Amino acid sequence: MNNFTWHNPTRIHFGKGQIPALAKELQASKKILVTYGGGSIKANGVYDQVVEALDGLDWIEFGGVEPNPQYDTLMRAVELGRAEQVDFILAVGGGSVLDGSKFIAAAIPFQGNTWDILAKRAPVSAAVPLGSVLTLAATGSESNAGAVISRGEDKLDFQSRLVYPVFSVLDPETTYSLPKRQVANGVVDAYVHVMEQYLTYPSNSMVQDQFAEGILRTLIEIGPGVVDSTDYDLRANYMWAANAALNGYIGLGVPQDWATHMIGHELTAEYGVDHAQSLAIVLPGTLTILKRQKHEKLVQYGKRVWGLSGDEEDIVDAAIAKTRAFFEAVSVKTRLTDYGIDPDEAYLKVSGRLVRHGLLKLGERGTVTPEVAQEILALSA
Amino acid sequence: MNNFTWHNPTRIHFGKGQIPALAKELQASKKILVTYGGGSIKANGVYDQVVEALDGLDWIEFGGVEPNPQYDTLMRAVELGRAEQVDFILAVGGGSVLDGSKFIAAAIPFQGNTWDILAKRAPVSAAVPLGSVLTLAATGSESNAGAVISRGEDKLDFQSRLVYPVFSVLDPETTYSLPKRQVANGVVDAYVHVMEQYLTYPSNSMVQDQFAEGILRTLIEIGPGVVDSTDYDLRANYMWAANAALNGYIGLGVPQDWATHMIGHELTAEYGVDHAQSLAIVLPGTLTILKRQKHEKLVQYGKRVWGLSGDEEDIVDAAIAKTRAFFEAVSVKTRLTDYGIDPDEAYLKVSGRLVRHGLLKLGERGTVTPEVAQEILALSA
Repeated sequence: MNNFTWHNPTRIHFGKGQIPALAKELQASKKILVTYGGGSIKANGVYDQVVEALDGLDWIEFGGVEPNPQYDTLMRAVELGRAEQVDFILAVGGGSVLDGSKFIAAAIPFQGNTWDILAKRAPVSAAVPLGSVLTLAATGSESNAGAVISRGEDKLDFQSRLVYPVFSVLDPETTYSLPKRQVANGVVDAYVHVMEQYLTYPSNSMVQDQFAEGILRTLIEIGPGVVDSTDYDLRANYMWAANAALNGYIGLGVPQDWATHMIGHELTAEYGVDHAQSLAIVLPGTLTILKRQKHEKLVQYGKRVWGLSGDEEDIVDAAIAKTRAFFEAVSVKTRLTDYGIDPDEAYLKVSGRLVRHGLLKLGERGTVTPEVAQEILALSA
Repeated sequence: MNNFTWHNPTRIHFGKGQIPALAKELQASKKILVTYGGGSIKANGVYDQVVEALDGLDWIEFGGVEPNPQYDTLMRAVELGRAEQVDFILAVGGGSVLDGSKFIAAAIPFQGNTWDILAKRAPVSAAVPLGSVLTLAATGSESNAGAVISRGEDKLDFQSRLVYPVFSVLDPETTYSLPKRQVANGVVDAYVHVMEQYLTYPSNSMVQDQFAEGILRTLIEIGPGVVDSTDYDLRANYMWAANAALNGYIGLGVPQDWATHMIGHELTAEYGVDHAQSLAIVLPGTLTILKRQKHEKLVQYGKRVWGLSGDEEDIVDAAIAKTRAFFEAVSVKTRLTDYGIDPDEAYLKVSGRLVRHGLLKLGERGTVTPEVAQEILALSA
């Protein structure tokens, strides 16, 4: 196990009917900026619940944060936040709204060109405090310090301890009105988050491995059901599993991969596929191309997560096949052609983008070059 | 899954060579009270490492906190802390030193009779901030808000968010010089902490169950080895497993038992057996007497943790037998007579103590009366 420092400061209010907890959390705020996405929260009652909890507080709102939140949109919120001197941001939505709000929080007090926060990873020395009401379990953004922001050609991330949410409200009932596609995406996203922190090489981190495997088994067990049903317990376990997948805990002291995410980001930026769809396309290829390098953990994964036994090579191949089949089982397609993408073009476009972004040595051992990324994509043509 | 709020504010510095992290953590402190136990830290070099990290800071020390920390001892530290106006407490030791230091932290600013914090659970409205250097992995006290304090006949606990350690340093190498008995106790203590939060009745909390089972499997796998060896990875996994067992995470939203602990506390107070020894005596009986009430989770435990299959009644009995055998395998005896305790006397003494302390309905369903506690102990005569 590698050394680490761990400190997750986010306070979680979990369960049905928890949105009123906002009133106490926000009682000291003087001017709150409520951010949200395309307006689904107005249709499903979440907006009304939030408004009721904010009764008596001074707040303004900024809607229209899109999936893969756009820098230009967010900068309009930054201007609003600066003009109105907001002292708290309440993000109501899924990972895109939360990520976008983290950027808004960091950009409002930023001195200089705010694009540098992403393009140059300029240090963030101050941020407006923020909290969240999560309505789509997937990214773990409600409990971590990272955000991914898009601008034209680019999909870039930044990290800062200052944008950990002060609190997050996780009410599984807020997910009831989600389209099936978004729930399915959430399941796949959470699954791949775990894999990025788990499926690398052995590091003698037994508790972290057990926890990672536990989240994977949970997602496999509930995945198809949670997409098709609004059973409270299924949704609660899905929401808590997605949180555990990327709140930082399972990644402590272990090597991490993230090549699948980096390749996937380029696919999304180029072709507009959903984030989770890009991961479902890329991951099976990553595991296959790197199966020598990841052999020991792939065998462990096959045995412990999929209950496989027998010849190790067979276990590895079956485990990868089962991973792809699981994504398909929750209705997330895993082939480029499923999304109308021309594979031959995609290899070149994606590898070209990786080169332009300087992403030349991805993965836990830096072996995923843009050429290897082409091989990975070729396995999901 | 039940609703919950989760916020663990403790910052963890984990790994070999992490004690120097104290310098930065404590740089703003004006007067630090360093607390420790019987002096083993002076023999194993931990004291010297701490002193070096405190170079340039103003600090005083209070040694001699005993196992099952005694109220009268701790009150001497409280007097010292008040006289010297300490503004930070650094606990260096295991669960007893940490628990004792939490009481010191709460008692220093307490207005009124400090015994009421324990005897009457008087609200704690202020505490001196504290941090820790953990040298014996067992209780999770380095990452939680609870403490158990002894005074004559009584062994009582209190909880306050104000005594969460601000930070804790977990260096597995600090455990190398521990007597085998203490490491074995730590393994059993951590194991039973998990069981108290897991082996109750189903609550549809899949991630929590998976994590609990993962810690148990880890402890089973490393238990005998970690007692006999100072291999770094074994000790690191042991230390991190014990932390995970009682940092609060696996207990979120689930029913909890704690009858074994309450009965065990009385055994320790009456007969002086180590805390973990008392748990090893009580737990097999608790599981057996409550096997109807706990049937579903016992079957799940037998299958997932011990890999058992077949008839459910057989799984339950085998799982309980394997639990007892595991404690014995790490050299923690599980029978009253192993410790020279007269069983017939113990039944009466322990049940009498439970009555005196008003502990009349223990366990996740309140079914463990003092009479049932006698039946439980009778199974470990």
